[in-house]
Amino acid sequence: MERSSSRRDDDHSESDGKQTKESGEIESIERIFESKEVPKWQNQLTVRAFVCSFVLGIMFTFIVMKLNLTTGIIPSLNVSAGLLGFFFVKTWTKFLNKSGLLKQPFTRQENTVIQTCVVATSGIAFSGGFGSYLFGMSEVIAKQSNEVNASENIKNPSLTWLIGFLFVVSFLGLFSVVPLRKIMIIDFKLIYPSGTATAHLINSFHTPQGAKLAKRQVRTLGKFFTFSFLWGLFQWFFTAGDGCGFSSFPSLGLKAYEHKFYFDFSATYVGVGMICPYLINVSLLVGAIISWGLMWPLIDLRKGDWYPADLGAGSLHGIQGYRVFIGIAMILGDGLYNFFKVLGHTFFGLYRQVKEKNSEADIPVSRNSSPQLPSISYDDQRRTQLFLKDQIPMWIAIVGYLVIAALSIITLPHIFHPLRWYHIAVIYLLAPTLAFCNAYGCGLTDWSLASTYGKLAIFIVGAWAGGEHGGVLAGLAACGVMMNIVSTASDLMQDFKTGYMTLASPRSMFVSQMIGTGMGCIISPCVFWLFYKAFDLGTPGSEYPAPYALIYRNMAILGVEGFAAFPKHCLALCYGFFGAAIVINGIRDLVGKKKAKYIPIPMAMAIPFYIGGYFAIDMCVGSLILFVWSKVNKAKAAAFGPAVASGLICGDGIWTLPSSILALVGVRPPICMKFLSRSANVSVDKFLGS
Amino acid sequence: MERSSSRRDDDHSESDGKQTKESGEIESIERIFESKEVPKWQNQLTVRAFVCSFVLGIMFTFIVMKLNLTTGIIPSLNVSAGLLGFFFVKTWTKFLNKSGLLKQPFTRQENTVIQTCVVATSGIAFSGGFGSYLFGMSEVIAKQSNEVNASENIKNPSLTWLIGFLFVVSFLGLFSVVPLRKIMIIDFKLIYPSGTATAHLINSFHTPQGAKLAKRQVRTLGKFFTFSFLWGLFQWFFTAGDGCGFSSFPSLGLKAYEHKFYFDFSATYVGVGMICPYLINVSLLVGAIISWGLMWPLIDLRKGDWYPADLGAGSLHGIQGYRVFIGIAMILGDGLYNFFKVLGHTFFGLYRQVKEKNSEADIPVSRNSSPQLPSISYDDQRRTQLFLKDQIPMWIAIVGYLVIAALSIITLPHIFHPLRWYHIAVIYLLAPTLAFCNAYGCGLTDWSLASTYGKLAIFIVGAWAGGEHGGVLAGLAACGVMMNIVSTASDLMQDFKTGYMTLASPRSMFVSQMIGTGMGCIISPCVFWLFYKAFDLGTPGSEYPAPYALIYRNMAILGVEGFAAFPKHCLALCYGFFGAAIVINGIRDLVGKKKAKYIPIPMAMAIPFYIGGYFAIDMCVGSLILFVWSKVNKAKAAAFGPAVASGLICGDGIWTLPSSILALVGVRPPICMKFLSRSANVSVDKFLGS
Repeated sequence: MERSSSRRDDDHSESDGKQTKESGEIESIERIFESKEVPKWQNQLTVRAFVCSFVLGIMFTFIVMKLNLTTGIIPSLNVSAGLLGFFFVKTWTKFLNKSGLLKQPFTRQENTVIQTCVVATSGIAFSGGFGSYLFGMSEVIAKQSNEVNASENIKNPSLTWLIGFLFVVSFLGLFSVVPLRKIMIIDFKLIYPSGTATAHLINSFHTPQGAKLAKRQVRTLGKFFTFSFLWGLFQWFFTAGDGCGFSSFPSLGLKAYEHKFYFDFSATYVGVGMICPYLINVSLLVGAIISWGLMWPLIDLRKGDWYPADLGAGSLHGIQGYRVFIGIAMILGDGLYNFFKVLGHTFFGLYRQVKEKNSEADIPVSRNSSPQLPSISYDDQRRTQLFLKDQIPMWIAIVGYLVIAALSIITLPHIFHPLRWYHIAVIYLLAPTLAFCNAYGCGLTDWSLASTYGKLAIFIVGAWAGGEHGGVLAGLAACGVMMNIVSTASDLMQDFKTGYMTLASPRSMFVSQMIGTGMGCIISPCVFWLFYKAFDLGTPGSEYPAPYALIYRNMAILGVEGFAAFPKHCLALCYGFFGAAIVINGIRDLVGKKKAKYIPIPMAMAIPFYIGGYFAIDMCVGSLILFVWSKVNKAKAAAFGPAVASGLICGDGIWTLPSSILALVGVRPPICMKFLSRSANVSVDKFLGS
Repeated sequence: MERSSSRRDDDHSESDGKQTKESGEIESIERIFESKEVPKWQNQLTVRAFVCSFVLGIMFTFIVMKLNLTTGIIPSLNVSAGLLGFFFVKTWTKFLNKSGLLKQPFTRQENTVIQTCVVATSGIAFSGGFGSYLFGMSEVIAKQSNEVNASENIKNPSLTWLIGFLFVVSFLGLFSVVPLRKIMIIDFKLIYPSGTATAHLINSFHTPQGAKLAKRQVRTLGKFFTFSFLWGLFQWFFTAGDGCGFSSFPSLGLKAYEHKFYFDFSATYVGVGMICPYLINVSLLVGAIISWGLMWPLIDLRKGDWYPADLGAGSLHGIQGYRVFIGIAMILGDGLYNFFKVLGHTFFGLYRQVKEKNSEADIPVSRNSSPQLPSISYDDQRRTQLFLKDQIPMWIAIVGYLVIAALSIITLPHIFHPLRWYHIAVIYLLAPTLAFCNAYGCGLTDWSLASTYGKLAIFIVGAWAGGEHGGVLAGLAACGVMMNIVSTASDLMQDFKTGYMTLASPRSMFVSQMIGTGMGCIISPCVFWLFYKAFDLGTPGSEYPAPYALIYRNMAILGVEGFAAFPKHCLALCYGFFGAAIVINGIRDLVGKKKAKYIPIPMAMAIPFYIGGYFAIDMCVGSLILFVWSKVNKAKAAAFGPAVASGLICGDGIWTLPSSILALVGVRPPICMKFLSRSANVSVDKFLGS
């Protein structure tokens, strides 16, 4: 139930610098758009944009809901939202233009507003947990789990409390993310591959005529978009079951496949790899090798000693526990280090400002952006200027966060009785840090680990509340609170990146996100209610088994047992990796920028710990392609690389839409491309022959 | 047990014309080689070439023999022979050059001589039928078949009669093909894709330095060669069993796959498709659609009525009978039409020559070459000039054919008692026509249908001799006689094409083929004898099951039953398609060249009748690539198309060598990539889970 979305690390801005220097020689996107006026932020928010967002939001919510309740795997819909938004409004404005009624032309900023609003709306369908924690509270699911079925641990869904719950938790992510946007986008220059790709797509739609290189870039983007889409379509036919299709291709052998080392032919991640700097991709690979190549096989040898040998593959009591908790520990280590570093820099800057009363230190940013300023490209200059023009005052974010936090501290215990006000208060204290971590990691690698942070909340609050006092329900509810914040944080930061690259005003983005979130809080429960009343949800083997609901409930049951539930030595290893993440970050800062680019980034290393190495391999393939291309023709690679990468990401992204619709209407792929060892194949052939 | 090797049809010489005009503007291969002297034909035949050929010949014979006795599928080894010949002699001459002992530089003509000699040698290992008709005569195989095991139908292998038999039959193909070479290569401008690709490869090895475009072409060839080789290697890992791997990829769906419509990811046939003219590829596709898309499914509906429903899939009494016999009928119709057309033109030319005593009509060729002459390219001019310089007198071919035919008419009945002299005499009367057909078809599509013609001989002679008089043995022996002639004919015509394009003298080619065939007649039986004594050949389930030996024996048993054995209406359909082939050819000649290029060629249409549509789809993909490329950049496509195609063909070709060696040493692929329908997948998953 991980979601992928995108960003770039501050330490890699040197590669950015190089690229912009070159692309400055080639052609600047913003120079092409120079003639086009950027509308005032109020004018970016049109009625037609929100009508379009509402329609698309309902559509995407249906799709996400269906996926929630069937497989539980939710693709990132940023790209689809951008494309369909363009298509709808363009058709509409063309029609109006012909009838002479068009007052305001359709701009890329308006397009970004639609995309943002739709993502915010449909994001709630995911982070609302209708297929996971929320539905895991229901009686249907509780009956399937043998333990802790006391009534205080059960809460059946109902339309009223669902909407109420969502309203009091969903806006928090938004407020926690707003103050971070400058640090993430401008100072850290994070990449957010999906957001960047969406921006490229939106820019390409709106490119004014006459720009020659831009035209060729758009054509390249279109070509790879088509290829990637058709490739997704082709792959679909061969995925009739689990472990079928190209995404399960043991391209490096079956042994490597078992340890999640394989190239899974995902156009998305090859594209993401082309956008991410080499260091990120190498860090991911190093992390995958350390964890899946070394640690897990070694820990697996201790099966029966460190943890019971008879556990299911997904049990957090077993090897999966090491994967999840060690990964989280390392991510937390890196995230906390960077959080406090930024905090330190900010305070130091403020201190200097106050002391020297020097207005120059107006922008107390992290170490990298200031030395970069002289060599900054025109694109970056213009984008930064517009991104910083319409400020959202810090006090709005802080007041908003505090008001809503207070509101939910008061209301939530009324909805979930076992959840106490101090549980929620603690979550709200920690949440901004974790939101920062998730937005940061997502910016680096395109992976949002919202559900992982949610699991963390299950464990902490579940153990705290205790089994006798409805700890299961408390854990699940805490998961919801946490997931809503961190998931929204990464989603909306992606959108800010898109906005940055399309010159959409942060203010219009913020308003759009507010409206989108509000729509989501009403649309999602209604859609879920429809499914809940119309179908027999949650029964295993039925059409809507909601597999993750039971998984989340079981995790919560495990959680109430507290630290004792951790497998042997797991906690010690967590401490070790938490420390290692801080130490590595410290070393990276000490040795200077030149040497730092040979030291892997802990945040990137930790992500494959839990997920596996396959997407790291995809991304390294993307890196390799770009590397070889740069060797052959540096100028061409610099000019067309982002277009190719965006095409690959967006084509695959759009394919999720028809594929989701196919799943919705019950059309399933006809063929399974299966991979068997030679011996297994012999016995299967015998079985099929008989 | 079909073998593929390569040619282009006369009616498509117009596309040749176009291409040469363009490539004339670009750069001519022979202009690049102009500075290099072509050695006299005697000097093309060096001792080192034949030493090298002998070593390679033994190696390839081992490989082919092993494949004969295990799977029965023999790849074309032309390319490997060319490459390894170059590598060996180049290393040798480099070594000599350094030590100052080199007298004669290594030329591309010498390289072609080696390639030709090795192909002739290893060709005997295939056409000698050690895995098919010859071994099918043995007692081991006879015991596995329930019928007609009388001693007169059994002949166990022995070294002496094997060598004798091969010597009296193998040279006939050579003599029958020599007089055809001018018609096939110069007049009909047949393509022989494999031969052309080999020639491109050899030319690229010997390209003098300084030619810029040639260098870029060589680099392109090298790139696609590497790609194709690595692709072959990658594919190998996933072919652990029957129906596994990319070659069984139901890329158009399972239903289409059942009817042999799928893209099988063969780099060879994509390359072949790029070399063959569009009309050939379209004809193949039309043939595939008529037969596998329409006729066979319709005939299949009559199962139980037209033929017994309980037959095995490969039984010639059933649907397979329609496929084989209708295909042969159509090929024979086309072949005979063209044979008699050439004969007519030749006689008409001679008649005119005698009547007008005009020395201008010296070259009485088919309709196409003369109008082409003015626009002929420099390459073609020079190649034609050298190809026609060293003539091999017609009388040598005729006398050679007659002497060896007489010799074998006398000796063969002593080896195979049921085979009468008049059986052999009739085969020898028909053989040159069939050799023409096979060389023609192979030139068009790269498929040698030698074994299909062999099957024809089994049926005719088997039925003629009758079951009581050892018809089974007679049929198998006749198959051998026939296969040797037609297989050699197509193989050596490929080599003549290579020789034509590398300016090797036909005389040196002829001598090399003679020596190669002679070596093959001794090496192959010896290698077989080694296997026969060392291993337990022909036992099902053993390491060397020689699957085709039993299949051939069963066909012979079927054959003795004569026409009665044909399934219902099969003979009528054969007559129909035989007639249709002649009529279509007639129309093609009547409507003129411009319209003829929209009428498919019966020969090409007939080949998928038996084999299926998959290679036609590969070739159409190749065509499509070239077509799109030409639309995008015509000059580049013309200059680099052949290099890409040759790279694809040669890389895949060379991969057969290591893959054969892997099979020899018993290394089998580890993974099976299997394709199951959704329902089958569900039951397999259940089976594997239990």
